[in-house]
Amino acid sequence: MAKLWGGRFQAENTKLLEQFNASIPFDYKLWKYDILGSKIHSKMLCKIGVLSEEELMLIHQGLDRIAKDIQDNLFNFDIADEDIHMAIESALIRDIGEVGKKLHTARSRNDQVALDFRLYVLDSNQQIQQLLITLMQTLLEIAKDHIHTIMPGMTHLQHAQPVNFGFHIVAWCMNFKRDLERLSNSYARNNYMPLGVGAMAGTPYKNDRDMMAKDLGFIAPTLNAMDTVSDRDFALDLLYDLSMIAMHISRIAEELVLWSSYEFKFIDISDAYATGSSIMPQKKNPDVPELLRGKSGRVFGNLFALLSVMKGLPFAYNKDTQEDKERVFDSVETISLSLEILNEVLNTMSISKENMLRMAQVGHLSATDLADFLVRECGIAFREAHHITGKIVAYAESKNQDISMLDEEEMLGLDSRIKKGVKAVLNLEASMNARDSIGGTASIQTQKQIETLQEWINHYNEK
Amino acid sequence: MAKLWGGRFQAENTKLLEQFNASIPFDYKLWKYDILGSKIHSKMLCKIGVLSEEELMLIHQGLDRIAKDIQDNLFNFDIADEDIHMAIESALIRDIGEVGKKLHTARSRNDQVALDFRLYVLDSNQQIQQLLITLMQTLLEIAKDHIHTIMPGMTHLQHAQPVNFGFHIVAWCMNFKRDLERLSNSYARNNYMPLGVGAMAGTPYKNDRDMMAKDLGFIAPTLNAMDTVSDRDFALDLLYDLSMIAMHISRIAEELVLWSSYEFKFIDISDAYATGSSIMPQKKNPDVPELLRGKSGRVFGNLFALLSVMKGLPFAYNKDTQEDKERVFDSVETISLSLEILNEVLNTMSISKENMLRMAQVGHLSATDLADFLVRECGIAFREAHHITGKIVAYAESKNQDISMLDEEEMLGLDSRIKKGVKAVLNLEASMNARDSIGGTASIQTQKQIETLQEWINHYNEK
Amino acid sequence: MAKLWGGRFQAENTKLLEQFNASIPFDYKLWKYDILGSKIHSKMLCKIGVLSEEELMLIHQGLDRIAKDIQDNLFNFDIADEDIHMAIESALIRDIGEVGKKLHTARSRNDQVALDFRLYVLDSNQQIQQLLITLMQTLLEIAKDHIHTIMPGMTHLQHAQPVNFGFHIVAWCMNFKRDLERLSNSYARNNYMPLGVGAMAGTPYKNDRDMMAKDLGFIAPTLNAMDTVSDRDFALDLLYDLSMIAMHISRIAEELVLWSSYEFKFIDISDAYATGSSIMPQKKNPDVPELLRGKSGRVFGNLFALLSVMKGLPFAYNKDTQEDKERVFDSVETISLSLEILNEVLNTMSISKENMLRMAQVGHLSATDLADFLVRECGIAFREAHHITGKIVAYAESKNQDISMLDEEEMLGLDSRIKKGVKAVLNLEASMNARDSIGGTASIQTQKQIETLQEWINHYNEK
Amino acid sequence: MAKLWGGRFQAENTKLLEQFNASIPFDYKLWKYDILGSKIHSKMLCKIGVLSEEELMLIHQGLDRIAKDIQDNLFNFDIADEDIHMAIESALIRDIGEVGKKLHTARSRNDQVALDFRLYVLDSNQQIQQLLITLMQTLLEIAKDHIHTIMPGMTHLQHAQPVNFGFHIVAWCMNFKRDLERLSNSYARNNYMPLGVGAMAGTPYKNDRDMMAKDLGFIAPTLNAMDTVSDRDFALDLLYDLSMIAMHISRIAEELVLWSSYEFKFIDISDAYATGSSIMPQKKNPDVPELLRGKSGRVFGNLFALLSVMKGLPFAYNKDTQEDKERVFDSVETISLSLEILNEVLNTMSISKENMLRMAQVGHLSATDLADFLVRECGIAFREAHHITGKIVAYAESKNQDISMLDEEEMLGLDSRIKKGVKAVLNLEASMNARDSIGGTASIQTQKQIETLQEWINHYNEK
Repeated sequence: MAKLWGGRFQAENTKLLEQFNASIPFDYKLWKYDILGSKIHSKMLCKIGVLSEEELMLIHQGLDRIAKDIQDNLFNFDIADEDIHMAIESALIRDIGEVGKKLHTARSRNDQVALDFRLYVLDSNQQIQQLLITLMQTLLEIAKDHIHTIMPGMTHLQHAQPVNFGFHIVAWCMNFKRDLERLSNSYARNNYMPLGVGAMAGTPYKNDRDMMAKDLGFIAPTLNAMDTVSDRDFALDLLYDLSMIAMHISRIAEELVLWSSYEFKFIDISDAYATGSSIMPQKKNPDVPELLRGKSGRVFGNLFALLSVMKGLPFAYNKDTQEDKERVFDSVETISLSLEILNEVLNTMSISKENMLRMAQVGHLSATDLADFLVRECGIAFREAHHITGKIVAYAESKNQDISMLDEEEMLGLDSRIKKGVKAVLNLEASMNARDSIGGTASIQTQKQIETLQEWINHYNEK
Repeated sequence: MAKLWGGRFQAENTKLLEQFNASIPFDYKLWKYDILGSKIHSKMLCKIGVLSEEELMLIHQGLDRIAKDIQDNLFNFDIADEDIHMAIESALIRDIGEVGKKLHTARSRNDQVALDFRLYVLDSNQQIQQLLITLMQTLLEIAKDHIHTIMPGMTHLQHAQPVNFGFHIVAWCMNFKRDLERLSNSYARNNYMPLGVGAMAGTPYKNDRDMMAKDLGFIAPTLNAMDTVSDRDFALDLLYDLSMIAMHISRIAEELVLWSSYEFKFIDISDAYATGSSIMPQKKNPDVPELLRGKSGRVFGNLFALLSVMKGLPFAYNKDTQEDKERVFDSVETISLSLEILNEVLNTMSISKENMLRMAQVGHLSATDLADFLVRECGIAFREAHHITGKIVAYAESKNQDISMLDEEEMLGLDSRIKKGVKAVLNLEASMNARDSIGGTASIQTQKQIETLQEWINHYNEK
Repeated sequence: MAKLWGGRFQAENTKLLEQFNASIPFDYKLWKYDILGSKIHSKMLCKIGVLSEEELMLIHQGLDRIAKDIQDNLFNFDIADEDIHMAIESALIRDIGEVGKKLHTARSRNDQVALDFRLYVLDSNQQIQQLLITLMQTLLEIAKDHIHTIMPGMTHLQHAQPVNFGFHIVAWCMNFKRDLERLSNSYARNNYMPLGVGAMAGTPYKNDRDMMAKDLGFIAPTLNAMDTVSDRDFALDLLYDLSMIAMHISRIAEELVLWSSYEFKFIDISDAYATGSSIMPQKKNPDVPELLRGKSGRVFGNLFALLSVMKGLPFAYNKDTQEDKERVFDSVETISLSLEILNEVLNTMSISKENMLRMAQVGHLSATDLADFLVRECGIAFREAHHITGKIVAYAESKNQDISMLDEEEMLGLDSRIKKGVKAVLNLEASMNARDSIGGTASIQTQKQIETLQEWINHYNEK
Repeated sequence: MAKLWGGRFQAENTKLLEQFNASIPFDYKLWKYDILGSKIHSKMLCKIGVLSEEELMLIHQGLDRIAKDIQDNLFNFDIADEDIHMAIESALIRDIGEVGKKLHTARSRNDQVALDFRLYVLDSNQQIQQLLITLMQTLLEIAKDHIHTIMPGMTHLQHAQPVNFGFHIVAWCMNFKRDLERLSNSYARNNYMPLGVGAMAGTPYKNDRDMMAKDLGFIAPTLNAMDTVSDRDFALDLLYDLSMIAMHISRIAEELVLWSSYEFKFIDISDAYATGSSIMPQKKNPDVPELLRGKSGRVFGNLFALLSVMKGLPFAYNKDTQEDKERVFDSVETISLSLEILNEVLNTMSISKENMLRMAQVGHLSATDLADFLVRECGIAFREAHHITGKIVAYAESKNQDISMLDEEEMLGLDSRIKKGVKAVLNLEASMNARDSIGGTASIQTQKQIETLQEWINHYNEK
């Protein structure tokens, strides 16, 4: 088929080229944005006198028919049309004739795709913000129920200090709060309207870009035409934002896998979100958390793919940037589905307070409290107290006991500076609640953290 | 040497472990932040009654002496001290004795390093903002001088439409504006104070974290202790911000390399920023732009490195995150130096208006104007006009001429719909200035873009 | 639908889980390998007495019917079947009844997918080797025609020394030779048979793995069952091999883009492999080389995706590794198509000897020859000769001339040590042919390089 | 200081340029290779008559003095010398005068650096092969001691089937075997001699490259000069080989971290390779495995960095490739140290057979054996047997028991098809030893795997 741009060409493109070059197998996803853009563009052309009111009406009616056809799966996405822009324009010309040929006045595919893709990116940004809010709310509900549930707080995957499970969940929630803020920032930074910059130099028509920006919901038109068609920062920003979400999910997923193991048994993933083995009948596998963890790879890969693509590209538009779309689509779809399913897994898993508590009683979790007791009550400098405690731990280990199992008398015998009352500080709940300054794990502090986050979510939802 | 934490250990660490494990060979760079943090921490300890005024004074004096020693290169960074935190604490204890052992009360290395590194990241963020402002100003000065300098605007590295050189430089400048906004956003997102969260659960002391946040210039303390020691988002955000700068630099560097070639000869890099060949005496190589382009690789690599490190890490602190610092230091230093030298290269290069103009006369740059003329003056729909123009270009090519070299009569003979006056629209300056809507390349529009950016810079500088 | 593994499960999986967890939307591509594996597995089960001859025949007939259905697009790939293995096994059971349930004896999905995917990877490896051979032959044909075509050899994109175009093309060819050797190495390293290792510990059946290895064309069975189901080195090796091909293609593509520009005009991409602009009728864009360059991003991204996925995974099989397939499929398909279309672009482009020669006459290409003349004929040490030549170049530049345009007398006047005959060495063809040791650009050496490569290809083809 | 290449330059380089451009701060590491290369190069120059025997002797003596100075830390690496090549050449000229200026005849920095760096890469490749052999031997020694040590074999981090610990260790060992083969392959692929190709076109001297290749231990000279100076495949190959080692280490490190946790307690890292907490006196942290896991990030990052650098670079040499060295040095040093310390950690850790066995008794590890019993002894098809077993597991779970704890009578009552003798197959040791085909975990099979690997190592060591 003859190309719309084929005037100067003497040989037709091969099938191989079409297969390699065409973006329509994936950019058809932009159809809504393309039609929306064309409607606003033609409205503007009418305002500046390029189209008559009647022509505008014909174009809008034609575009609406195309939109309906696409929705009804009646539209033929033909690879010979190269991309969604040409596909829709060709269909319009077939439908409404000569008037359709006027639509592309005062614009270029370069600004057209810049608009369509940016609309997709900004829309996706907002949808993922919503998914994050839902997930944060789920986490807060869990946290609220568990501010008294004691578990071993870990560093280096070693038991460190007793914390409550709600406090741990708040830590997860904070990651998604930052993700949401990051998305919100990149939305604002990139909320500028590309249409009307033409191929890279502007157009000789008196495009009313302010009007188009307003109608399309942007802050303002972009400032410089060459930059506008060269810029893919908005896509990279989203790929990075999504990589951070993926990384955060991978850490939570790692914990879900660990906690589902026979060794931990802190949680039990719902049968509805686990799978079995084809050969081992007893198995119940945490496939969903594993996949959630593994999905980070593809999302990171997409970011690096586009960074590599952009590296060293001269201005202005180069075809290399066509590689932006599949990477972004894949990351958006991966993270959207991941957030949705993580939310369900969390909502349906069962939590074993007993096993958490049982493991908190292992590993000398109150050793720091002992050291702090030596500082506060016995007047020993911290470094010295740390040293004494280390020796008591070694002593307990040699007896294969937790320090909380040592008798008070026994402890007093180990170092003459130790005072009576030492046994009391080794109680796990007391230890946990002792951490009572801002950000600490004391139930009362955890409660405050939950309230702060709930207010933040409420505030977000009210906007 | 006995470790400060060695109480429970029965075997000494090997040299091999020290070499592998120690961070002091690189984290010594954080010394200023570590001392600052210790001063504010001890001030707080005094306020809540853990230290007496006198003890506080001794500690501050000791820390000041250490700071001076480091500045005077008299401080011995011993690998046996593991990290900068231990090195300074040990030195303090050696200097002021028992009182020094009280300093580590109510904090942990986990929150200490989180503070030091965050201070480094935020400081670096601001320093790079300054370098970007300097570079943007340089670009604007160049742009101001060249709003009438015609050059071939390119897409696909093919001559497309005539633009002015100032307009092209504004496109560069826009990239750095977005970089600056990105840095500014990530600064604000991460401007929270980690100190006082202890190992990961808070401390049993009544730490006044609000006071410390205020004294250290943060917005507020962080919300959740476990999150605080687990979080490296602030480091990743900077690595991403710097990757974007590196990518933008690589694109500009690519153009500097192209433009320095014998084929383009648009610019000439100053001898002061070029190098020669060991074997070919005639060579003058654009080494600086090439290296600027190549540096993007390491900066991307650093981002990817830390994303990989963080992937799948359980909460809270894990030693893996020690890998964060070298990656960030390297990217900060690379980009700082890159911005500085790019600024110099731009300030000292010479620009050949003649060669730019000469090349603008090649490649039928005004073909779009011809098509637009056919639309505006001859009443032909754009798609049709595009087709006619394509044929005229093919005709000119067959004569080995630019379309601007065709006679008016000759053109009128090629299609009966073409009207008189067609020759006039093919003038390059007219063509450039015809693109006169927002964002266009017309000199008057370029001027407006420069003014907008200048105001933005002025506003930034006044903050 | 009830899962084949559902015995111990009390809740059914949700649709969301199926959508997230199922691999059949992409692993259906492995169907041929899955059926082949099942045929060989059942043959072995018959040999060791688990299946009767009659049961084996029923299973093979059933599998053949399924294969035919798939080829005829009559097979229903149901997402509820999770993966291609379950889909085929379920269909078999529906078709031949109880006997079908015996097929999965003595194997697990873990070794089944390890086999299927490895067969895909090894097959793809060989197909890409063939595409590389075709491309290398194309390059050699071009090189053979151009051993006397002089062009400017460049370093730093600056004219350096005269070379012939055939020599440049041989450099390209060498990249693909290494790629082919790399593929060949990774093929041999990974050519071991996974089937029969069960879930990760082997099976209690007396599997004849040697027989299966032989029947499936592998060197031998894998050595350790746990390693076999954990190992994805074979996939990473291919992703790396393909990344290197992508990188090499990107460099050649960069040159094709540069050479197609108005500034270079060394080549002209065939109309059949170029595209036009929607707005600028004169444009002919090298879209194919640009996309070839850009595709490197996604191929690199796929490698890093899988490296990230594998990082930190405990043994043995984890669901995370399901992420391997889409990455590998994408890279294989991208590189296959890229090699094919690059071959066509090279076969159909036209080469401008005139423009190459014209540009070779710019940039003092024979300056090294002048320096060498000073060494050889005038007895000056190389470093000194280099310095003298540099001054002569500066002198010529000041006159806006190439050094080859200077008079002999003029040169003799510039330094008293210069001897007569100097003018002769500045001839471009002489200069090119002077580089006549192994690997040099002299036509005679280029010819030898071509012959060596042709023999290498012939030898490869005869294997 | 005047540059050796400064003839045509009119302005001196700035300090900033030196700082940015110079490679000597890192490429000084190549000094041994640079001096070796210069000795062989001058020997060849003497053979072809460019240098007299006496000149050759002076040069070799000068180079030997420089080597000694460097070894004795008496050599001044001056940033003004740019790189190690210029530093040594300048020093030579200062030392032996005019004769030194002849050394650079018939070569260029481009082939010089290509030689030096390739020698470094090949040497490092072999050193890492040695470290891998040492590590493999350590693993085999551990494996030999533990072919009867039962532990829970896992998939999805869920208990799956009983295996012996030796078998698990053999799986680790297989990863390093592939790594060694990968290194060996890339060594052979890249073992070609670059020297003598000049800047990119060869030299007009009759360089005897065959002689130099032989003297330097290469297979042969490289085939094409332009390719030789453009090629960095050898560096990328090593970066990939090291990334794979890093990935494998990260997986083993993950297991070491897990196994050191209170939940697992399978191993205890030696005090000599663990560290403590600054605040929690009871802590013993597996810092080394954590760092080993985290180091994968930087090694992956280095590979990605260089791939990005090379992407889209035109031929031949570009300064961008100077970025290759730091990336490779860092990966080589990281992996060398990692392999060394991993070897020590493994050699000194203690292994708890008791805890491994205890956990093997949890999780219905013999469920597959039960299913297989139903197939073999009760004539039930595997899929059906799997289903029955799943129900028995669910029944046991409901009683909070392992299936091995169920009475025979109880089991017979659960399904009428189950035959007597079922209780016996649930024994862990029997279950483990039942997996007795090639690659299986039966002690006898594990023993064979160990022997095969030991022979492979012996064979390697004898080469």
